[in-house]
Amino acid sequence: MEHFVDVLIIGAGPAGLMCATALASAGVSVKIVDKRPTRVLTGQADGIQPRTTEVLQSYGLAERLIREAALVHVGVFYNPNEKGEIECTGRQADAPQSSRYPFKISLNQGSIEVIFLDAMKSHGLTVDRSMAPTAITFDEAKLSDPSAHAVKVTLEHLATSDSPGRRDEVHAKFVVGADGAHSWVRKNLGITMDGDQTEHLWSAIDLVPDTNFPDIRNRTNIHSVNGSLMVIPRENDMVRLYVQLSDRDVINPATGRVERDRMTPEKLIHVAQKSLYPYTLKTTQEVDWWTVYLIGQRVASKFSTHERIFIAGDACHTHSPKAGQGMNASINDSHNLAWKLVHVLRGWAGLSLLKSYELERRKFAQELIEFDKKHSTLFSAKPKTKTFQNGVSHEDIVKSAEKFAGFASGIGIQYQESVLVNAKHQSCAQNLIVGQRMLPQVFIRAADYGPYDIHDYLVADARFKVLVFVGDVNESAQLVKIQALAEVLHKPTSFLNKYLQDGQEIESMFGVITITAKSQGLVDMLSLPAVLRPHWSKVLVDDIGMTKSQGGHAYERFGIDEKELTLVIVRPDGYVGTIAPASHVEDVNDYFASFMVVSS
Amino acid sequence: MEHFVDVLIIGAGPAGLMCATALASAGVSVKIVDKRPTRVLTGQADGIQPRTTEVLQSYGLAERLIREAALVHVGVFYNPNEKGEIECTGRQADAPQSSRYPFKISLNQGSIEVIFLDAMKSHGLTVDRSMAPTAITFDEAKLSDPSAHAVKVTLEHLATSDSPGRRDEVHAKFVVGADGAHSWVRKNLGITMDGDQTEHLWSAIDLVPDTNFPDIRNRTNIHSVNGSLMVIPRENDMVRLYVQLSDRDVINPATGRVERDRMTPEKLIHVAQKSLYPYTLKTTQEVDWWTVYLIGQRVASKFSTHERIFIAGDACHTHSPKAGQGMNASINDSHNLAWKLVHVLRGWAGLSLLKSYELERRKFAQELIEFDKKHSTLFSAKPKTKTFQNGVSHEDIVKSAEKFAGFASGIGIQYQESVLVNAKHQSCAQNLIVGQRMLPQVFIRAADYGPYDIHDYLVADARFKVLVFVGDVNESAQLVKIQALAEVLHKPTSFLNKYLQDGQEIESMFGVITITAKSQGLVDMLSLPAVLRPHWSKVLVDDIGMTKSQGGHAYERFGIDEKELTLVIVRPDGYVGTIAPASHVEDVNDYFASFMVVSS
Repeated sequence: MEHFVDVLIIGAGPAGLMCATALASAGVSVKIVDKRPTRVLTGQADGIQPRTTEVLQSYGLAERLIREAALVHVGVFYNPNEKGEIECTGRQADAPQSSRYPFKISLNQGSIEVIFLDAMKSHGLTVDRSMAPTAITFDEAKLSDPSAHAVKVTLEHLATSDSPGRRDEVHAKFVVGADGAHSWVRKNLGITMDGDQTEHLWSAIDLVPDTNFPDIRNRTNIHSVNGSLMVIPRENDMVRLYVQLSDRDVINPATGRVERDRMTPEKLIHVAQKSLYPYTLKTTQEVDWWTVYLIGQRVASKFSTHERIFIAGDACHTHSPKAGQGMNASINDSHNLAWKLVHVLRGWAGLSLLKSYELERRKFAQELIEFDKKHSTLFSAKPKTKTFQNGVSHEDIVKSAEKFAGFASGIGIQYQESVLVNAKHQSCAQNLIVGQRMLPQVFIRAADYGPYDIHDYLVADARFKVLVFVGDVNESAQLVKIQALAEVLHKPTSFLNKYLQDGQEIESMFGVITITAKSQGLVDMLSLPAVLRPHWSKVLVDDIGMTKSQGGHAYERFGIDEKELTLVIVRPDGYVGTIAPASHVEDVNDYFASFMVVSS
Repeated sequence: MEHFVDVLIIGAGPAGLMCATALASAGVSVKIVDKRPTRVLTGQADGIQPRTTEVLQSYGLAERLIREAALVHVGVFYNPNEKGEIECTGRQADAPQSSRYPFKISLNQGSIEVIFLDAMKSHGLTVDRSMAPTAITFDEAKLSDPSAHAVKVTLEHLATSDSPGRRDEVHAKFVVGADGAHSWVRKNLGITMDGDQTEHLWSAIDLVPDTNFPDIRNRTNIHSVNGSLMVIPRENDMVRLYVQLSDRDVINPATGRVERDRMTPEKLIHVAQKSLYPYTLKTTQEVDWWTVYLIGQRVASKFSTHERIFIAGDACHTHSPKAGQGMNASINDSHNLAWKLVHVLRGWAGLSLLKSYELERRKFAQELIEFDKKHSTLFSAKPKTKTFQNGVSHEDIVKSAEKFAGFASGIGIQYQESVLVNAKHQSCAQNLIVGQRMLPQVFIRAADYGPYDIHDYLVADARFKVLVFVGDVNESAQLVKIQALAEVLHKPTSFLNKYLQDGQEIESMFGVITITAKSQGLVDMLSLPAVLRPHWSKVLVDDIGMTKSQGGHAYERFGIDEKELTLVIVRPDGYVGTIAPASHVEDVNDYFASFMVVSS
């Protein structure tokens, strides 16, 4: 069987499913395959950080996630006292309170996969299971033509499939290898994993606890004289425990390999009990899932080959599970890649745009490994006590948590300068950091007074959003400047028009959103030039809403001068791409010219 | 064909679908039929008031409703100026800002029906269409046995069905006639409609407007010298216009009947244009829906026969559509009836409980008619101008809106004293009005610091909720009182135990939620007796959350003394049933004894 698709995705874990959902929702023809016969049913990754919740919201998936998950509001710290008992030494918000979702989310990977699978299904896409790649080749002659099916992948139907042994050939324009830490795609392309070769031992167990420990429903870091333990609340009354083991518990010294038989869930609970002393812990129900494994802290040396084959998720980076980052890194890899593929497939951008995927996500992965090393070292270290002054103190842990809060929650992630990140006019909005995600902020819709977060407008629809801060439209001097800007934007050479084909509307490529300052009296929307109000819903006011509890003071918060006109260009993935004053629209033109192509 | 069901519902409009959804979610065997071959597709009723949104939230249906609908935040008033042009005379929040949903919701009836149909489907229930009742009888001998199938209904398959002319017999324990203003069930039972026999003329049109009228996306009341007009925002860029017509426009003077041919959508738009002068209005798209009809303001003389056959929705009350009440009254009729049917069907309560349906909902319907008369008179009256001093002024309209705000939004609806509404100890929580819906209020969950509105706990699961306000559990004096209360509640004669069958858990019949006052330090949940913490999630704290923006001061707001222990009994439909101090648990016992029955 031969198939022709725009994108073939290999692997249907979080990275592959996010990529498939994003591409399918943009109308791209996608095939996604996985060697497993079913989706993940229990356990595995389970932590969703605030930025990832924002990302899922931009695809319309956050509501259900929040409804089904456990929400983690508080991080609690326990350390040993003089009697060797653990006691609470601190308690703090577990996510930045400035986030739109000021909590972490905990839900088993299987349920998260179902949310993606249902979203894909609404676009007519399902996963082809029990299929594995056996060969991948590309046609050098076709590499420079973005519309060519330059990659050929042979897929074998596995023993668990309906037609074992059958082989299909898939001709794809692009391939995404989201096939996990042992990625076949990565190995086949000869991409190495860089980093420390030491492997660290981890164990985790999901159970319904019966305990007198008061913080069993919070994310709790326990440093005890009997080893470390982390508690993560879970849905359905469960908790996950990360239990510190010593190598001798599970590693065969002869082979250096983990032998799962050496451990049992009962033994894991027993170790956890000792760390919790003087509190008790047991479970009256069957253990839902448990694991013991070794993992290294490594990053792939390359994330792509010829901008035709990409790897994403665990295929690119391996690290400890403790900081709850794994699934987040995977989802955000694909979120970063998908819109770029859409731009190239639609003929809006050239192939070189795809280089920015590795540039942005590999640097992130390296930072992630650095963060994970510090975090897991602190976690595994012995606590500071009277007799062991060199141990890790409560203060050490809190200081580290504060330092990495923006990175861990994802809301502080910063992409470096590139064709996509241009900070030349950063001073026009100095608190909207170019390369970081657009800040959430409630505005009031001019037409109907509805309070809406700007993030509600930054949907992941593969379009750049053009936020035009126009000041007070009821002031006639300001209106003169607005008219002048509209004339500049109307020019055929303006970025809004330059890339359109005959008859194509600006809105099909760019989302223009106008944000006015608070006015004396009603904001007169109709005085705005048509280019700045493509739809009645696209004019927002920097004001407080009818409930008096939301919105207002955004110009001040963002550092934008109400007397000037400022353009903020937000990338399709929600990151601020560039900023410019109305007097320098040519810099915005240049920004887009550096990666977009005029359709022929 | 013969069928045996617990409840047969005739009519699948909002009243019938709400009833079916509520009963099916409680596991009741239901059959629901409708004579129409399909659901409503466009137009019809479309306004959802804040209380109805709360009710739908209690069934888990509000999220989707809010996502699909237009939200109406602001009510705007226009009146004629001296030049005969309309101008804005006022602008105010369109729903009580104290409501959990401080906006009205506008969505076509068809989309609302789909939300119900999907909820029913998740419980395995679909509507049998193209079927109409032709006979209804009941077996007098069986009327006193609640478990008997005492009612027999003959249903005919209509010409639009697959088997025209076929007749089925349905034996039901209870029948709900939700078959609209011309209810066959009502007429067949000989129930009369009381009230003014005058019929009033209404017209409505749904369209996508092209206009320079600035308040086209708000709920706008326009009093012009050319007639009145009301604008209601709608989903999909539409608006609904209620257009005042004169009888001669559409009524055949010979017959007194509306002749729809005398009107066209173009004529309706033309009348609306005149009212909007000096603003312009046209539409470039096809009109989605329009109607012209006569309706009287009437209430059925009875809402039930022998507590076996009930009528609900438009079958019970007809009135103007202008105040956006119709669908709300219908949904709330069924919401009131459904849990009572569940209690009787489960053997928890006697048949007499069902008398409270007519008692509560007929009084409401009468109040609705009174409100509608005042509201529609004001709407249709000529505006006050220099030359017509007897007209209705802007102040008259605003005063009326303020007076009826609680009734119109539904959050002020008050059920009178009955077996279900006992205000003997109102003074123990003087701001939680017995007979009104429980006030929304954010509390912090003791176990995990999550902020939750108490309404999130008042799910429509047919169970009474027992809110136990226990004060500060960290004070030992208070803890002594709490222990004493637990002992009283533990007695076999306590309402929590008296109605249980052997081995049945309290939680299957009652939802116990404990609310502590703010403490110095952590609330020690584990010090509470087991009866007051049936699950880790059921202990709430009257405190502000980690975000500092939610919760706190509930004891003060409700008028509850922190040094006392207070029980607040909330009915399964979310209304406060009774209140008692811990020293008078016997009054709570008496409350339940007045309608619940000890299982035999």
